[in-house]
Amino acid sequence: MKLLIFAAITFAAAAQRTPAPAFYEDTNNIPVSPEVHADRRVTFRLFAPEASEVLLMGSPGILEFTKKPLPLTKGEKGIWSLTIGPLPSGFYTYGYAIDKGLRMPDPSNPNLELRRWGATSSFIVPGAEKAVMEARPVPHGTVHVNFYDSANLNTQRMVYVYTPPGYETGRQKYPVLYLLHGNGQIEASWTWTGRANVILDNLLADGKIKPMVVVMPFGHVQREIKTAANAPAPAIGADMAAIEKELMTAVKPMVEAKYRVLTDRNHRAIGGLSMGAAQSLTIGLHNIDHFAYIAAFSGAANRAEWEKADPEMLNRKLKVLWLGCGTEDFAYPGVKGMAELFSKRNVKHVWNESGAGHSWPNWQVYLSKYAQLLFRD
Amino acid sequence: MKLLIFAAITFAAAAQRTPAPAFYEDTNNIPVSPEVHADRRVTFRLFAPEASEVLLMGSPGILEFTKKPLPLTKGEKGIWSLTIGPLPSGFYTYGYAIDKGLRMPDPSNPNLELRRWGATSSFIVPGAEKAVMEARPVPHGTVHVNFYDSANLNTQRMVYVYTPPGYETGRQKYPVLYLLHGNGQIEASWTWTGRANVILDNLLADGKIKPMVVVMPFGHVQREIKTAANAPAPAIGADMAAIEKELMTAVKPMVEAKYRVLTDRNHRAIGGLSMGAAQSLTIGLHNIDHFAYIAAFSGAANRAEWEKADPEMLNRKLKVLWLGCGTEDFAYPGVKGMAELFSKRNVKHVWNESGAGHSWPNWQVYLSKYAQLLFRD
Repeated sequence: MKLLIFAAITFAAAAQRTPAPAFYEDTNNIPVSPEVHADRRVTFRLFAPEASEVLLMGSPGILEFTKKPLPLTKGEKGIWSLTIGPLPSGFYTYGYAIDKGLRMPDPSNPNLELRRWGATSSFIVPGAEKAVMEARPVPHGTVHVNFYDSANLNTQRMVYVYTPPGYETGRQKYPVLYLLHGNGQIEASWTWTGRANVILDNLLADGKIKPMVVVMPFGHVQREIKTAANAPAPAIGADMAAIEKELMTAVKPMVEAKYRVLTDRNHRAIGGLSMGAAQSLTIGLHNIDHFAYIAAFSGAANRAEWEKADPEMLNRKLKVLWLGCGTEDFAYPGVKGMAELFSKRNVKHVWNESGAGHSWPNWQVYLSKYAQLLFRD
Repeated sequence: MKLLIFAAITFAAAAQRTPAPAFYEDTNNIPVSPEVHADRRVTFRLFAPEASEVLLMGSPGILEFTKKPLPLTKGEKGIWSLTIGPLPSGFYTYGYAIDKGLRMPDPSNPNLELRRWGATSSFIVPGAEKAVMEARPVPHGTVHVNFYDSANLNTQRMVYVYTPPGYETGRQKYPVLYLLHGNGQIEASWTWTGRANVILDNLLADGKIKPMVVVMPFGHVQREIKTAANAPAPAIGADMAAIEKELMTAVKPMVEAKYRVLTDRNHRAIGGLSMGAAQSLTIGLHNIDHFAYIAAFSGAANRAEWEKADPEMLNRKLKVLWLGCGTEDFAYPGVKGMAELFSKRNVKHVWNESGAGHSWPNWQVYLSKYAQLLFRD
């Protein structure tokens, strides 16, 4: 009762003090969005009484799943809506484009895709069976947010680390996968958005992977996409050399001092998505004495050095060299080209071609496939 | 070089495939925002070429620091801007209100205030000396994201846990503070937004607190603010009984099994902000045999039970009973009233009145003050 009175006082007082748009004062104005219906249709809603155009964008910038911007229709009380589908069961990210330029996540949806700029939103359409990224009541690992002061980059940075179930109370040492994110993403992306921890929990519960520690560092030098007005955004990949140095001289030593991990190359893997794929193919080859496993999801780079590398050496040292890309992905020609290079030079590798494009559903499946090949001997 | 080509191909291909608003394809359209100038003025910018009104809202719903919505002015290339200040050094949260209803975080700013609904943005104005919530190159603790399946609530939930520097490689057992968030916030809020881990790292480095583990559970029953169209949002505090049960029967046992923590009441504290203050005053009193320290930041509740409690018992059992509120806070009368009740009944307590209102800068300072009183004997 006291609490209800407290709440009433709260909003009465706030309303009195602040001549703000009504929306902020009354959560009842917030529509439910997205609403995933039992038949796998999905309704999106947005309160935007004065907007002249609201577009649904599947993965803004990429448009996965909507293919093109889809207009919402203005209805009663300033609420725009759109129902699409039935959608295939799976994981989706989306945002809104409003009035030809403004971009925003769905304010009703607490599930955000975190990014360096322009957070978007996510949702899951459940299927008849649980997909690999859907939470199940199995033993859960822990995601650790580590903070450290980088001497190389003269700033504080974060590294996310996944430890498997039982890590806290056990004594075992584990192999390590360094898992790298894409351009615009952050160190939280592989877990917060990509649900890597859920995927690994599920695979471990099903006996499909070895327990492992997964290290997810930040793959850009600076947090903001730009820091000075009118400065051009740096090119993708501009950070490569600095990130390689940071991973090998700061992140890896910190992880090996702080966590119970195995430190021989046969128990160390690297892999990443998009920009992180490019980084994995570069850092992995430069440091092949440290990594017995390399994977590139939906990205490629460093072809010239791979062309020069001795195939016999690569086949001897790399237990798994894994490439995956969707046929609709803009990165497909580049990744496919790397696979063809490896085939031509008789470099053992796995080539995983899938449908769809440059999107989390592919990366979630690629991680689940790559993880199953790791640390088998 | 390959990477630059890859990047060029990426955006050329994306542009070809997607008839999306230009903004999504060219990060050069993203203005720098907020830009904190050396003189502590702050410039906010937003690309919104078709908007008719863009308002800066300090802490949307509360309006801390802006006091009222402040209009941005439309300039060249569809970019709206506003420069305010000089602002006092400190921590700020804000969002934009666009065209009378639409709310959004600042898409340029990677620092989000995460919430159940309507994420907003944050920034820091540095001062001459580092404030308690500003990162310094001191030893850093770790923030752990724990996932568990709640039998009480039949869903998977998260608990954030801060462990002090050295936890991973030591053997010591630590006292525990249960730290509860406010309405609309989430288990990530105290660290991601409130920077509790930074505060505790700094205080520990300065020898001002005992090292402690801090447990930050989720304080609502469900993640979404509403799950059915046209359903009213539940009242603040509706979750109280369920959250008390969850904390005592699920969170606390899990923490005590998984972490090296002391398990006697003298080494266990509770405290929270706003709704979390109400929960702390309720759960703390109901379970006084489990908590020797109780704190309420900017919130109050459960007055009737506190009025009935034996002052002698309270004074004997509670090592610290801590209340804090800002004089501009809508919760001020309620919290001040609790302090007056305690004074009248000769219940020992700390009453911390500050300026300003219902906002993170107060909660950050309250945490730093409360933490310094914990586990001293």
